[in-house]
Amino acid sequence: QSSLTLFGVADAAVSYYSAKGVYYYSPVASLPPVATPIEVGRSLTALSSGGNASSRVGFRGTEDLGGGLAASFWLESGFNQDTGANAIAAFSRRSTVSLSGGFGELRLGRDYVPTYWNESVFDPMGAVGVGENLIKTVSGSIATVRGPGSLIAPNDNAIRASNSIGYFLPRNLGGFYGQLMYSLHENVDSNNVPGSPSSKGRYYGGRFGYANGPLDVAIAYGESTAADTTTLTAAGIATGARFSDKLKTINLGASWDFGILKLMGELSQVRDSTSTVTPVRGVAGPAVKENDKYNGAMLGMTVPVGPGMFKASVARVNFDNDLGPVLPGAPDRDASVSKLALGYVHNLSKRTALYATVAQVRVSNGQNNPAIMGIYAGGLANVAGGTASSGIAPRSARGYDLGIRHSF
Amino acid sequence: QSSLTLFGVADAAVSYYSAKGVYYYSPVASLPPVATPIEVGRSLTALSSGGNASSRVGFRGTEDLGGGLAASFWLESGFNQDTGANAIAAFSRRSTVSLSGGFGELRLGRDYVPTYWNESVFDPMGAVGVGENLIKTVSGSIATVRGPGSLIAPNDNAIRASNSIGYFLPRNLGGFYGQLMYSLHENVDSNNVPGSPSSKGRYYGGRFGYANGPLDVAIAYGESTAADTTTLTAAGIATGARFSDKLKTINLGASWDFGILKLMGELSQVRDSTSTVTPVRGVAGPAVKENDKYNGAMLGMTVPVGPGMFKASVARVNFDNDLGPVLPGAPDRDASVSKLALGYVHNLSKRTALYATVAQVRVSNGQNNPAIMGIYAGGLANVAGGTASSGIAPRSARGYDLGIRHSF
Amino acid sequence: QSSLTLFGVADAAVSYYSAKGVYYYSPVASLPPVATPIEVGRSLTALSSGGNASSRVGFRGTEDLGGGLAASFWLESGFNQDTGANAIAAFSRRSTVSLSGGFGELRLGRDYVPTYWNESVFDPMGAVGVGENLIKTVSGSIATVRGPGSLIAPNDNAIRASNSIGYFLPRNLGGFYGQLMYSLHENVDSNNVPGSPSSKGRYYGGRFGYANGPLDVAIAYGESTAADTTTLTAAGIATGARFSDKLKTINLGASWDFGILKLMGELSQVRDSTSTVTPVRGVAGPAVKENDKYNGAMLGMTVPVGPGMFKASVARVNFDNDLGPVLPGAPDRDASVSKLALGYVHNLSKRTALYATVAQVRVSNGQNNPAIMGIYAGGLANVAGGTASSGIAPRSARGYDLGIRHSF
Repeated sequence: QSSLTLFGVADAAVSYYSAKGVYYYSPVASLPPVATPIEVGRSLTALSSGGNASSRVGFRGTEDLGGGLAASFWLESGFNQDTGANAIAAFSRRSTVSLSGGFGELRLGRDYVPTYWNESVFDPMGAVGVGENLIKTVSGSIATVRGPGSLIAPNDNAIRASNSIGYFLPRNLGGFYGQLMYSLHENVDSNNVPGSPSSKGRYYGGRFGYANGPLDVAIAYGESTAADTTTLTAAGIATGARFSDKLKTINLGASWDFGILKLMGELSQVRDSTSTVTPVRGVAGPAVKENDKYNGAMLGMTVPVGPGMFKASVARVNFDNDLGPVLPGAPDRDASVSKLALGYVHNLSKRTALYATVAQVRVSNGQNNPAIMGIYAGGLANVAGGTASSGIAPRSARGYDLGIRHSF
Repeated sequence: QSSLTLFGVADAAVSYYSAKGVYYYSPVASLPPVATPIEVGRSLTALSSGGNASSRVGFRGTEDLGGGLAASFWLESGFNQDTGANAIAAFSRRSTVSLSGGFGELRLGRDYVPTYWNESVFDPMGAVGVGENLIKTVSGSIATVRGPGSLIAPNDNAIRASNSIGYFLPRNLGGFYGQLMYSLHENVDSNNVPGSPSSKGRYYGGRFGYANGPLDVAIAYGESTAADTTTLTAAGIATGARFSDKLKTINLGASWDFGILKLMGELSQVRDSTSTVTPVRGVAGPAVKENDKYNGAMLGMTVPVGPGMFKASVARVNFDNDLGPVLPGAPDRDASVSKLALGYVHNLSKRTALYATVAQVRVSNGQNNPAIMGIYAGGLANVAGGTASSGIAPRSARGYDLGIRHSF
Repeated sequence: QSSLTLFGVADAAVSYYSAKGVYYYSPVASLPPVATPIEVGRSLTALSSGGNASSRVGFRGTEDLGGGLAASFWLESGFNQDTGANAIAAFSRRSTVSLSGGFGELRLGRDYVPTYWNESVFDPMGAVGVGENLIKTVSGSIATVRGPGSLIAPNDNAIRASNSIGYFLPRNLGGFYGQLMYSLHENVDSNNVPGSPSSKGRYYGGRFGYANGPLDVAIAYGESTAADTTTLTAAGIATGARFSDKLKTINLGASWDFGILKLMGELSQVRDSTSTVTPVRGVAGPAVKENDKYNGAMLGMTVPVGPGMFKASVARVNFDNDLGPVLPGAPDRDASVSKLALGYVHNLSKRTALYATVAQVRVSNGQNNPAIMGIYAGGLANVAGGTASSGIAPRSARGYDLGIRHSF
């Protein structure tokens, strides 16, 4: 006995994105930059894809192997409804094959990382569209939100990880649920190359939760190696520095369903930890470490209204650039972002809905993290293009989606 | 109640393409080029894809929402049957989600532009293969058929447009039908950048027709902004020219079914209108305009013969390069193309057919539009590689397809 | 009456690959290189895709046209289960449309070449995973196994060919079966360009066999033009050399099913034949020919064990670089490779299996063909990166797959 299902979502919206900022510059190169009062603005109206649920096409199936055992697969590709781009070019949303039974589920391939589930399950907006969870926006874009002087380290594994081996607890544990995930870095180990293999790309994490009656609560942790490089001499000897960068995410999400409304929220911290070890006369010196932190909180709710659903969320993320003590009287070195999102989904059927979402973002001290994310989820080219010394600092952003979502 | 359909076409043919031309050169740089009697030829035999119907795979479905309302989606990708290339890499043939009811249909995404329907519906060959509508070939390749001295402006939206919002009249209007389409340009509006936003990519158009009994007639118009650029100084000030290029297509198609044969035809004009405004001492000067025109006519018929269908069409497109008055005794500055196509489709079933098509193209004054299209629909590298001063001028082309088409 | 089937395979494994080699150098540039005792090693652990059957998604269907005639199509794309990459980006595994009847089958598009069938059908491992047929590995990578001084000629058509016209004998010939295939090169014939058209890409081949009771035996031959170039002067005159490279594959495979075990094997020769004709004072000189040969033999068996299947194979490929007579006392100029592979497949159902495969490869005189294939089927970056004068010569390799395969 087995099943094979073709499924998907077709979701398109008319969207508007705008962002405002000011110019900034550093009067003294060693000091944090200062914002000026010169305002600039950017805006864009677009047909967008996936404002209520990411547009996708997938194939999935399950085979009952008897004795409680089952084999299953899930292949899912995202596409752009507005242009048709991507189609089924890659099963980059999910590509897994599983064996499951009384022991739980063993899952191989590309899948969501554990920490991502808290960012989508406990977000009234489902982590899509202009109203998406601010914490998710920042986590997925760590590379570009780092402060002046910081290095770039894209958080490749913020949402999904390839080459993963996952384990899920069985479903009948009295409300407890959980999963573990390990992703192979797949770098070659060369016996005559110092610093080999690099562990760049390795990921491990887990999530454990409890769902019973109106309550659902879960905690998750994940660690992704974003960089691990060793500088070699021409002769292949490691006289240069070994640099590593790890992104460590911990978050806690919870929801309580009161019937007339469902409250939900998330607390999150992402640490971007770099370590540089420089050999001195052939001996490894002390590790120079830097820890940028992104502390986020989000509170939201959904309210069923007839065939529709009203949604709201407020969120804030504080950036903590590890730049040492601030001189007396010097400006703040850290940016912060806050977001308000409101939405309404009108269900025409179980599978089809019309929706509207509006979002407003405010940024403080954007000159310290000029490429701040979360101000224009959905498509507008970044308001900021600045460097550490001068550029455009984001101050606020606004957006809306007006769309239709059809699941098949 | 809903449906989900996987569908497609697998169509492959053995095709032959040949083209002949002569060398040309300009004795005086300011005069149109002159053809010489030195002949060159090119030919190619290939396995081709989509000679009778474009090879494709798609997913589509409709959900009845009650009260006359329905939601639907259509995702369709073209592929190359001969090599397997493209597969479902992009839903570039169509990617839409719709809401329809008594008011008609609202359609969002990537779709055919209104003017294209006249070029395919009223073409006996369905605008595919070596016999395809000459008007369609030229319209879809405006960029490369422009005359000496002209600028390149690819007609991106000749067949389909992305980011479109479409509206279709309801079906029960006593034979009248129609549609409107608007495509967003999706360029960023920057409050401190002159000439922003560029409207490159914007499209709007419409089509209205009447079908009753043996008659079907429709008129369509579309305007696509192929270029809209403003030259800025290093300080971001618009001291340079603002150049815009619009492609304006109007066409009229009609068919009359006499039973024993069906007559059909199309008249078309594509205007390639550029405008250049150069500021003089900071003030916008007068617009310098240029209008290249492509005037086309096509007449065709289909004749049912037992389980088969005989097809024929003749077509002509005249190029009118806007190069000002011709000096007395100087050679003609405009090229023209004519085409004869004959085909036979032998239906083995409703879904499967064998087919044969032959086509012959003749070009006059090809040296004025060396990259003339329509002479080798289907694949042969262009016979012409010339510039305004010397190169190869196409004179004639010939081709055939012998293939099998299977719909699923 | 017709059918439309969506099908595929989801196959993922934890795999380990390791390779060992030694440095080599040439004491005298005109002599073959010599291996040194300095050892290097490479290893990699990875999640891999398709260790038991290539991961794929496809669409296929048949329509009964009556009178014994049928139309059918087959569109199949391979993907990477471990990362989701490729998905349905190209129907590069197979893209065909067919007409079949009492006369056999006419098939158009991209398909397997005839010689490849012997390499997969008579391989206990089905030509996939770490245990794959050594002959297949070498044949598919001729470009990189050529000896010092040899030119690169990728065997594009080793497994499949695009633009092919295939014919298959009907099925009811008393056990005899066979096929012919011709692939068009699709290069333009220019009447004024010497050496035009190049025949690069052209393929032709055939396979004939007999299967009756426990016996299955087949012979196949194929010839692929890997290169055909003519050096022209600036004036377009062929004063330079015309170089052509043909890959000629012949192989013989057979199996005998004893019930408790099935014996199988393959003999193969691939000739890489180049010809260079240099004109002397405008007249074509004598052709300078070179013939590199790859002689392979493989013996294998499968043994059903309850719900499982044990598999084993041994194989060897000798390289014969056409470098002329060896000086007395000079080292051997030819490499050779041998492989031992063992596997076990445990069927959980007809569609789902767990599997384990191990393989060991040994290389002699690897310094002569440093990029020797077959030592790391499945993914490890090549141990060798050498040139003719110095580099790393492969000596041995080892690998295993531990995976799950699910067909749908």
